[in-house]
Amino acid sequence: MFKTRIMTPGPTQLLPEAQAAMAGPIPHHRTEAFRKIFSETRTLLQYFFDTQQDVLILASSGTGAMEGAMANLLSPGDRALIISAGKFGERWTSIAQAYSINADVISVPYGETFDLRTVEERLEANPQIKAVFVQATESSTGVRHDIERLGAIVSGRPQTCLVVDAITGLGVMEVATDQWHLDLVIGGSQKATMLPPGLAFVSVSKKAWAMIRESKSPRYYFDFQKELKSQTKGESAFTPAISLVIGLHTALEQIRAYGRDRLIANAALLASASRVALQALGLKLFARSSPSDALTTVCAPPGIDSGEIVKAFKDQFGIVLANGQGEMQGKIFRIAHLGYYDFYDAIATIACLEIILKQMGVAIELGAGVQAAQRAFLNHPRP
Amino acid sequence: MFKTRIMTPGPTQLLPEAQAAMAGPIPHHRTEAFRKIFSETRTLLQYFFDTQQDVLILASSGTGAMEGAMANLLSPGDRALIISAGKFGERWTSIAQAYSINADVISVPYGETFDLRTVEERLEANPQIKAVFVQATESSTGVRHDIERLGAIVSGRPQTCLVVDAITGLGVMEVATDQWHLDLVIGGSQKATMLPPGLAFVSVSKKAWAMIRESKSPRYYFDFQKELKSQTKGESAFTPAISLVIGLHTALEQIRAYGRDRLIANAALLASASRVALQALGLKLFARSSPSDALTTVCAPPGIDSGEIVKAFKDQFGIVLANGQGEMQGKIFRIAHLGYYDFYDAIATIACLEIILKQMGVAIELGAGVQAAQRAFLNHPRP
Repeated sequence: MFKTRIMTPGPTQLLPEAQAAMAGPIPHHRTEAFRKIFSETRTLLQYFFDTQQDVLILASSGTGAMEGAMANLLSPGDRALIISAGKFGERWTSIAQAYSINADVISVPYGETFDLRTVEERLEANPQIKAVFVQATESSTGVRHDIERLGAIVSGRPQTCLVVDAITGLGVMEVATDQWHLDLVIGGSQKATMLPPGLAFVSVSKKAWAMIRESKSPRYYFDFQKELKSQTKGESAFTPAISLVIGLHTALEQIRAYGRDRLIANAALLASASRVALQALGLKLFARSSPSDALTTVCAPPGIDSGEIVKAFKDQFGIVLANGQGEMQGKIFRIAHLGYYDFYDAIATIACLEIILKQMGVAIELGAGVQAAQRAFLNHPRP
Repeated sequence: MFKTRIMTPGPTQLLPEAQAAMAGPIPHHRTEAFRKIFSETRTLLQYFFDTQQDVLILASSGTGAMEGAMANLLSPGDRALIISAGKFGERWTSIAQAYSINADVISVPYGETFDLRTVEERLEANPQIKAVFVQATESSTGVRHDIERLGAIVSGRPQTCLVVDAITGLGVMEVATDQWHLDLVIGGSQKATMLPPGLAFVSVSKKAWAMIRESKSPRYYFDFQKELKSQTKGESAFTPAISLVIGLHTALEQIRAYGRDRLIANAALLASASRVALQALGLKLFARSSPSDALTTVCAPPGIDSGEIVKAFKDQFGIVLANGQGEMQGKIFRIAHLGYYDFYDAIATIACLEIILKQMGVAIELGAGVQAAQRAFLNHPRP
């Protein structure tokens, strides 16, 4: 017997209190009862985003808000700078192509982050760049980008906005939306908010609203101005995903009570304990610079396909890990720390990995990774 | 952040599929729809009890069925033999006092099981003994009693019935109700059936029915003859705990699909892995003879109150363990293996215990228990 436990960096495990809330009957969305929940949820999102700006709720997964960000900000033929360091960075380029945006791409090898000077140089060389697109965490590689310093660079340019895909980022690293001058910040329900997929969130700065009013790209479902007008009155422009909004309301209330910073510190503890454990087992971490606390990306030992490790986790222990994506498939596997995970999850995953590696003939000492993680726990401040 | 995880030997963790079933709307109990569920559930209980006899479902916790067993079988002044090896054995004596039963008690020290010869001697010495009362597992001490051999002894006496409290026993050890000639076998919902408390079950042999028809103890709610008459028609005599019955139907269907023997083997694996781990850490197991696979009872290290260990588990890791009961309080703690637990649970509990012992200054090596459990897992046949 084993329980199925999802340990992927999205979707992540569900908050039971939110599940219970979502299991109830739903109100109609054009009622005062729902308008109250919807408005309160938007206020709670401001806390989660660390912002005074308006945060919109969209009935879509995160990619919808990524598309919406580009379609609302830019017009066909506009210039954009894309920072691409993995599968989600590449998605910005695909969206730019779909909307005939003239994209300048800073492409960074998988497992690394970008060089801030390169960004400065490109912005200097192309003063007509209207927006910079980046991920807070590139969850295909497990790398965290330096959003704070990027915000400092872009905010000095009155004609350029910064768009941050913080779908993997919010609730797992500091994202000081206002203080760091982030113009569009995007979130999704299936990450640190501990909900199923189906909702996207986006905060919009005054600078971004000014650009949005001028842009001419086609958009209808993801029209941010239309949404703002409706959502200010407590309603979404189109039918909202009612039960997910109810779940989000519950989850964000719990996060506000627990503390945004503690949620972030919890992921940091699990990431830190998992990494010393993996290194004690002689495994190589894939994120060579600036690893994110959202997840740990691990290189499979030489001669072993990471898919076999993922399969053994599923078949023997019911643990669902993520394989690498695209060209990283078979080479890495990914363990989530963001949202509803605790030390119990982290330590059991390491203990099961040790068994799997032993079965595969990898020369490791059983318990060695666990011991390293236990030491890390004992020395780490409690979130 | 941590999740709250109940690891007590009752209530145990809930089966999610049963939770989902119980969260639905309930039918009225005097309908064909519910009669069908109720009857199917009684048939599934026959599989779970390994019996062709009638199994009754009662809306009570296990103690209600224990009382019912005595009240239905015996009359005031009747002689009974009680095997008492812990808090639940002592409960038989309390019930006997309440019903003016003349109880002969074989009292065994906590942590030990009874001697079969003593039972034979007492039965020889008191041929008027009408019933023998025993636990399959005494869950206050973690000891398993030899029900098979007890069945062989009692079944040779046509005037004596054997009553087995298998609340902790069914689904965690072999209980061959018919083959072992067990006259009354009692179960409860909050153990290996992975449900909340609130239901008791009892199987009744032909020999027991004959005795029940003669008995004169007062009973009303727990009148087994009245229940049999109703339940044969698919209804309980009084209002049933409808949602729990619906959950039981789902849980037993899952158990039948998974296999009763595999459920038992799963607990055996977790018990075995946990015990070698605890011993590798230098801890003493409390059950000196015949340990049950339902739970492991562990002696706190010298100078440490087991309540402090239980508290540290709760405060630091959200794990709810059971302290000792009565005179064992402060001396032992108890870890459950029965029902909805898997290796992930067992190994994480050992890893967290190691951290707690280290914090308390106990001389243990971090990871040593985990390593022993991992070795046990690798060498143990898969359930």
